[in-house]
Amino acid sequence: MSIRNIPGGVTAARGFSASSCEAGIKYPNRKDMAMVFADVPCAVAGTFTSNRVKAAPVLWNMDIVKKGEPVRAVVVNTGIANAGTGEAGMRLCRETAAHAARVLDIPAGSVLLGSTGVIGPNLPLDRMNAGISVLAKSLSKTAEAATSASVAIMTTDTVNKETAVAFDLPSASGEGTVTVHLGGMSKGSGMIHPNMCTMLAYLTTDCAIDRGLLQKALRAVVADTFNMITVDGDTSTNDTLLVLSSALAENRLITAEDDSYRLFCQALFTVCRELAVRMAGDGEGATHLIETRVIHADTKENARALARSVVGSSLVKAMIYGKDANCGRVLCALGYAGPDFDPERLTIDLQGEKDSLCFYRDGCVQTFDEEKALALLSEHDIHLLCDMNMGREEATAWGCDLTYDYVKINGDYRT
Amino acid sequence: MSIRNIPGGVTAARGFSASSCEAGIKYPNRKDMAMVFADVPCAVAGTFTSNRVKAAPVLWNMDIVKKGEPVRAVVVNTGIANAGTGEAGMRLCRETAAHAARVLDIPAGSVLLGSTGVIGPNLPLDRMNAGISVLAKSLSKTAEAATSASVAIMTTDTVNKETAVAFDLPSASGEGTVTVHLGGMSKGSGMIHPNMCTMLAYLTTDCAIDRGLLQKALRAVVADTFNMITVDGDTSTNDTLLVLSSALAENRLITAEDDSYRLFCQALFTVCRELAVRMAGDGEGATHLIETRVIHADTKENARALARSVVGSSLVKAMIYGKDANCGRVLCALGYAGPDFDPERLTIDLQGEKDSLCFYRDGCVQTFDEEKALALLSEHDIHLLCDMNMGREEATAWGCDLTYDYVKINGDYRT
Repeated sequence: MSIRNIPGGVTAARGFSASSCEAGIKYPNRKDMAMVFADVPCAVAGTFTSNRVKAAPVLWNMDIVKKGEPVRAVVVNTGIANAGTGEAGMRLCRETAAHAARVLDIPAGSVLLGSTGVIGPNLPLDRMNAGISVLAKSLSKTAEAATSASVAIMTTDTVNKETAVAFDLPSASGEGTVTVHLGGMSKGSGMIHPNMCTMLAYLTTDCAIDRGLLQKALRAVVADTFNMITVDGDTSTNDTLLVLSSALAENRLITAEDDSYRLFCQALFTVCRELAVRMAGDGEGATHLIETRVIHADTKENARALARSVVGSSLVKAMIYGKDANCGRVLCALGYAGPDFDPERLTIDLQGEKDSLCFYRDGCVQTFDEEKALALLSEHDIHLLCDMNMGREEATAWGCDLTYDYVKINGDYRT
Repeated sequence: MSIRNIPGGVTAARGFSASSCEAGIKYPNRKDMAMVFADVPCAVAGTFTSNRVKAAPVLWNMDIVKKGEPVRAVVVNTGIANAGTGEAGMRLCRETAAHAARVLDIPAGSVLLGSTGVIGPNLPLDRMNAGISVLAKSLSKTAEAATSASVAIMTTDTVNKETAVAFDLPSASGEGTVTVHLGGMSKGSGMIHPNMCTMLAYLTTDCAIDRGLLQKALRAVVADTFNMITVDGDTSTNDTLLVLSSALAENRLITAEDDSYRLFCQALFTVCRELAVRMAGDGEGATHLIETRVIHADTKENARALARSVVGSSLVKAMIYGKDANCGRVLCALGYAGPDFDPERLTIDLQGEKDSLCFYRDGCVQTFDEEKALALLSEHDIHLLCDMNMGREEATAWGCDLTYDYVKINGDYRT
């Protein structure tokens, strides 16, 4: 009962509209700009790339989130990342935000920005601003508008990513409960790696929640969702995750880490996990989603490190692409992950939808039925279970296989 | 004058012979076992994988090196790694070393072992021991025997790797100088990554040097050679680097960190660097060697981390395969390497044999002549120079491009 999946994405929560358009930033004949707009000033929380080289819109957003001022809009473009652009990139942020503020009649400091695409070139200001004018005029609260926005922010993504949930919280009036909504969209396919919130993701909610707690919830949830996926080990210069709260659900304002806060965190986890897993499964060139669950680790951080090492291993990724049950690759990736463990106590299982087999136990790679292994490795979702037999902590990481197409996509990305 | 390249490999130093044979461990019709034998008891130093899962022969060798007893022989097989084999793997080490000791008439504790290949299966003891008997009978001090040994230890390597140098040191008699030799062979193509001595590498020297200093020299040199190459970010369970000293050159025993020690270190660096760079350039499926030199970093460790991050980036590797001058990939890889730096002070140059171009400067990706970039990226050796403008430290790392063939080789490794 508590948390229900509902249709929609970034417009599922009360007070949010979205739009998208063909601005011709880099590619012809495709939508390449999107806007999310809030009817009322919103509390905002965000996490950003840990890369030392931060794109101009990342610096712009970090400043706004740090100040804690309410926000009203997010403007996103694809095609060019506005990274490695120095002062010209920052000037473009100021000018596009100012233009958006004018056409939307809101303060420039309430406009968040996002860019994704090639690093280096400067964004064309005239086309950006023309796009923003179109976006401002075509805002809509429909699910279709949200979906179109999620399509417009794609780069090498093969599918758009959006999801939404609803849940109930005590009402502000004190009588019964009200329904609260949380939805979002994300994009990301290459340059995806733990160690920050990954790629562009925009969430909206109508939940009334203290801004500090919103930020705290986001940080906690990111550690087990967006930070647990990897496609290629490359941490982008533009990674951004933002959540905007309109507080229009009329729930009792969440001001403490109570039951309502915990339910909100659970809903946030549900949405972030769904978007994160879809990004991992849609990694550049991917034909498999790889899920690695590490259980009975000694510490949470070790569990995460071990799980991430397996899904990040080029050899594991290539082996799964080739449906080759080469268990030594998994064993090896656990071994160089960093945390200490006893290889004699470790077990590794390959788990399918209806069947499973043991890869490794008692210090030895096990012999197994190769046909059964091939059948398990032919499923789209590959589940590896690593039992460290050391403690009580667990973590799950997601990634994808390494294919010819990954090399092809990235050998010739700019053209 | 001081250090001269000479022909040969593992038999270049006085007192060492080598042999190889077809033992039929896993593959038919190829040499898959090699032996290095010393006429006299040798001091030995070694560095081993940092992987928590260590192959049986690694544990065997670590024990011998730790004890500090003199060694006489190294027996290496390819095809099966004897890793993930538990107690059965250790028993096989004891039994093969005992057999080698019998046929060579030396102590079992003076026999070092090395294995490379698939993780999991048990080595066939009968074929191993039959191979050892053949190896013991065919030992030779010729350069051809050394070359054959370096071929026999290959797995997915496309070329064998061996090198040797000669240099002069004060004689033991006190009259003039004597010529000292140092040579070696290595193998490694996949599962190559910094953070340990990489892959199998066996060096021999006739230099008389205190065992503690030999180990110290090896550790120092490894940090800037074998630990600065990467192919795929995977640290193997079997990585081993051993250096054996016969002390037959009749130089004055090196017992302090004097000029002789420094010259020996320089020779060791020359040999290790040569073998390491050849391994990087022969990475699985590689079509380019990538060299990244980081200069003017604030600390040595930061210089190393930055250089390694660039050669380890899947996106940089794929971009170089595609000859796509996508400078943002290099910028991004420096940014997530860990060390702090100011993107405004950084410059990145692409350097060819006769020409070069600036990728990035003053916080901005530069515009450059695409045809010139294509010409530079068409050279086999790709040189990237990253000037951090922060301090006086520098480091160089080597890797290779990421190609379809890497995926192909590793998607179907066991078959």
